[in-house]
Amino acid sequence: MRTIDWVDGAIEMIDQTLLPDEVRVLRVDDLDVLIDAISRLVVRGAPALGVAGALGVAMIARAHRDPSEVGPLAARLRAARPTAVNLAWGVDRALAALPHGAEAVLAEALAIRDEDIAACREMGNLGADLVRELVPDGPITVMTICNTGGLATVERGTALGVVQTLFERGDLREALAAETRPLLQGARLTTWELAQMGAPYRLFVDSAGPSMLTRGLADVVLIGADRIAANGDTANKIGSYSLALGARRAGVPFIVVAPESTVDVATASGDEIEIEDRGTDEVVSVRGVRLAAEGTRAINPAFDVTPHDLITAVVTNRRVVRVGRGETMHDLPHSAADDTVAAAAAGSSGWKEN
Amino acid sequence: MRTIDWVDGAIEMIDQTLLPDEVRVLRVDDLDVLIDAISRLVVRGAPALGVAGALGVAMIARAHRDPSEVGPLAARLRAARPTAVNLAWGVDRALAALPHGAEAVLAEALAIRDEDIAACREMGNLGADLVRELVPDGPITVMTICNTGGLATVERGTALGVVQTLFERGDLREALAAETRPLLQGARLTTWELAQMGAPYRLFVDSAGPSMLTRGLADVVLIGADRIAANGDTANKIGSYSLALGARRAGVPFIVVAPESTVDVATASGDEIEIEDRGTDEVVSVRGVRLAAEGTRAINPAFDVTPHDLITAVVTNRRVVRVGRGETMHDLPHSAADDTVAAAAAGSSGWKEN
Repeated sequence: MRTIDWVDGAIEMIDQTLLPDEVRVLRVDDLDVLIDAISRLVVRGAPALGVAGALGVAMIARAHRDPSEVGPLAARLRAARPTAVNLAWGVDRALAALPHGAEAVLAEALAIRDEDIAACREMGNLGADLVRELVPDGPITVMTICNTGGLATVERGTALGVVQTLFERGDLREALAAETRPLLQGARLTTWELAQMGAPYRLFVDSAGPSMLTRGLADVVLIGADRIAANGDTANKIGSYSLALGARRAGVPFIVVAPESTVDVATASGDEIEIEDRGTDEVVSVRGVRLAAEGTRAINPAFDVTPHDLITAVVTNRRVVRVGRGETMHDLPHSAADDTVAAAAAGSSGWKEN
Repeated sequence: MRTIDWVDGAIEMIDQTLLPDEVRVLRVDDLDVLIDAISRLVVRGAPALGVAGALGVAMIARAHRDPSEVGPLAARLRAARPTAVNLAWGVDRALAALPHGAEAVLAEALAIRDEDIAACREMGNLGADLVRELVPDGPITVMTICNTGGLATVERGTALGVVQTLFERGDLREALAAETRPLLQGARLTTWELAQMGAPYRLFVDSAGPSMLTRGLADVVLIGADRIAANGDTANKIGSYSLALGARRAGVPFIVVAPESTVDVATASGDEIEIEDRGTDEVVSVRGVRLAAEGTRAINPAFDVTPHDLITAVVTNRRVVRVGRGETMHDLPHSAADDTVAAAAAGSSGWKEN
């Protein structure tokens, strides 16, 4: 089942707000419905949002004979989540095909979808090869955080795509998923994906990760990325850094898995990355239940930055970069330049969606 | 307001299961009610449970003229929480006074209460002095985890008692409280205590702590302890170790605050401490709301062990031990031997209550 796809003339997407309690597919053939779905996080995850944006433009273009009507509507779609760089990127790339007609727009959107599927498959292979190299013997226990699976992409995911490939190769003993407070993407989404996959897994509270690593309970840590600086410093979901500290103390490999579009060589190091604070509400309550004393305020950094010296390697859909040994993300493969969101977003301080 | 006390011939305690939503005092003059209250965590925290046990024996002794009836009832009280070492210790110490009559038992129980109050006050002073020495200039931001305040003791707390002393001295800029998944003692109890105190504070999700330390958002980390081994290795609420890793990388002092009764010189190092797993339920739901996919199992270590090399100092009610510099917990001050629970519990693998 794909997270998002084009089916019989409309967009279909799994409604992630209902997971893990219910699996419902939302069929979208109206712009207002699509904008609402994006705003409510029915669809989320940087790659999936890029596809949503592109398919949305195709939907608009097919519904309006007059190309001049498409631009303003696409601009509304583009603004559905202002900080989601990939949404804007998907919209813009599909729009660029508009002079060739609505079917050309759809073809471009489907190409974006297919590129995502191929990129995840490639990350899965490169990542699983690397993990097997670093952990040569026996079945492998992987620790991960947040949701980096098919629900964040179209089909297979980034870090969780590597877990899936290890599982398919018979190399996975167990996946250990951090619940990922405050929004609990690990508890809500990653456990659901692992259950769907049929892979053995267990959940843990985020703060237990470092001590579990020290106790030898995992062989490798695999995480995704929201932005990777030129020197390999990686911004990702809050809690990634603490797992990196635990992995280092325990001598466990720590690997970042993300598409080339996440690499931002215009950012020299993590010091230049501003950390967004998402405010009090997510921390003082869980799914509508208040946890803390009335009037409590929170510090709520959405991301942290893991310095490259704590990262064994970055795996993209094109390469393995051993940033812990001083290799850098410069010298981007020429063929990868096309799918670099960072280039499109140069100068933007916007964050990709999580 | 005291967490637990003897008032007009009965035990009174704040019902912690209702916090932070409601402050209700439960008055107890019946053994079954007391056992139920202890089982349901109406009262919790190692020192408070010791006082509850001792006051419970006094309540029993006053209600039964025949001393031979007291022993079996006290044994039932002692078993209300089998792993709470301090509960058994409080029961046994009060029972030892029974040959001198019911009023002698009450006097012993009140002495235990008063010793706890004095010990917390002393920890507050020694701890605040040490923090001021390590952070010589300006107001101080303290990071802490779990609930180590008056709610875990009778009146002022251990690590949070130091925060209170810093606040009273005008040295506190802000307290930063980790929510402390899975049971959320930080969110539910510590925020309530800080609000009562009138101290400035904010809450954060546990996994954000290490990165907040690296970003310079706190000057010192203060935690409590469940057991301190001879070499200074400290078992405490899960998540303590990750804050210690973050503090080390950031160059921030990391201080353990706990009464002498927590020191267990019979345990040579943290390697000998077995970590209790509290099972799946606490992790896959929060206050009755399910978080994860149906059928998800969890790894749920209740505690972790912070190695002494990551600990700047241990502060007790008698001394400051710089375990990070290689000082050990041996050479217990002679006068402290009396209040050492560890001696009473030698050979026990039971955990103190959290």
